[in-house]
Amino acid sequence: MDLFDVVLAQRACRHFTDDEVPDTDIERMLTAATHAPSAENMQPWVFVVVRDRDRRAAVGELARSLWDGGARSFAAPHIGDRMLASIDDSVSAGFGGAPALVIVGADLESGVHPSALAASIFPCVQNLLLAAAALGYGAALTTLTTLVADQLRAIVGLPDTVQPFAVIPIGRPARPLGPPRRLPVGTKAHRERFGTAW
Amino acid sequence: MDLFDVVLAQRACRHFTDDEVPDTDIERMLTAATHAPSAENMQPWVFVVVRDRDRRAAVGELARSLWDGGARSFAAPHIGDRMLASIDDSVSAGFGGAPALVIVGADLESGVHPSALAASIFPCVQNLLLAAAALGYGAALTTLTTLVADQLRAIVGLPDTVQPFAVIPIGRPARPLGPPRRLPVGTKAHRERFGTAW
Repeated sequence: MDLFDVVLAQRACRHFTDDEVPDTDIERMLTAATHAPSAENMQPWVFVVVRDRDRRAAVGELARSLWDGGARSFAAPHIGDRMLASIDDSVSAGFGGAPALVIVGADLESGVHPSALAASIFPCVQNLLLAAAALGYGAALTTLTTLVADQLRAIVGLPDTVQPFAVIPIGRPARPLGPPRRLPVGTKAHRERFGTAW
Repeated sequence: MDLFDVVLAQRACRHFTDDEVPDTDIERMLTAATHAPSAENMQPWVFVVVRDRDRRAAVGELARSLWDGGARSFAAPHIGDRMLASIDDSVSAGFGGAPALVIVGADLESGVHPSALAASIFPCVQNLLLAAAALGYGAALTTLTTLVADQLRAIVGLPDTVQPFAVIPIGRPARPLGPPRRLPVGTKAHRERFGTAW
């Protein structure tokens, strides 16, 4: 699939079918992920692929407790009723029933300066999301459960030396994904100096 | 270009020709960037495209002062002599002589929770890098100058309400880019629990 076709169509998927995600597809996604840039090419990423039902449910329950316990109240004023309802449904179903979760963390002993860790992880996450889309999967970037890193660590046995940055549900979309809604570049870009219209 | 072909070939470019990057290509890159995910689709990204020679030189000089003033010493033990020499050359030439710099920031008043800002910017940066590669440009993700955010802000007139996250040099590669060097997925991925080999 053409890069621009994938990039311009990619959007969050919050509702999944039960269809499994085979190892070969996971590996293509992770190979894409590992080709992202990182500070000094230190490749600090760590992936845990979770398909076990009970373990997925535990991560989902952690997300639900945080959503109901405050994140929903924070988000509600900012987002429309439709998105709120969609997230409510997704959270109730445990990451929308996704058959696979990929937890992406950073190895704190990799040598990457702390200030460059996020810059060395989220490009990798984006490559993973794009590869999933190119293979016909839905996926989403979630970070809520990383706010309680130790609880997330406990579920998947991550040591203290790995900081979780994202949990990515992956599966076949249960409903067709509409086009992403984005503001035009002209509202976001400036020429030479901030305030000079592009 | 095929998504996987671009993703698997992408790598940092540190040396550029003088050839200009036309608006149409910048717009394709920024359009790709704006199609990245962000927390609650808040799209907090802000871009300043810098092509003016003096302003580019000022950003380059800021990077040089930080590199010579400590970043080089931090990086040197971690990276090989070849990469160190390549970065030295690139820094001396002002982001390798790139004819365009894209400064990517986050609008702190966009409504994105502070904990989700980096997760809402670096996927956009990665889309930009991939789009540049697909169009035959070299580019690189740099974050060094964002450590002195106020100095970077001053050069391009960014208000305090915009936090710079990355400076991306873009141009035609001055030398052929070799393949990226990455560790295999098997060294980074775990099955169900950390420590269980993929």
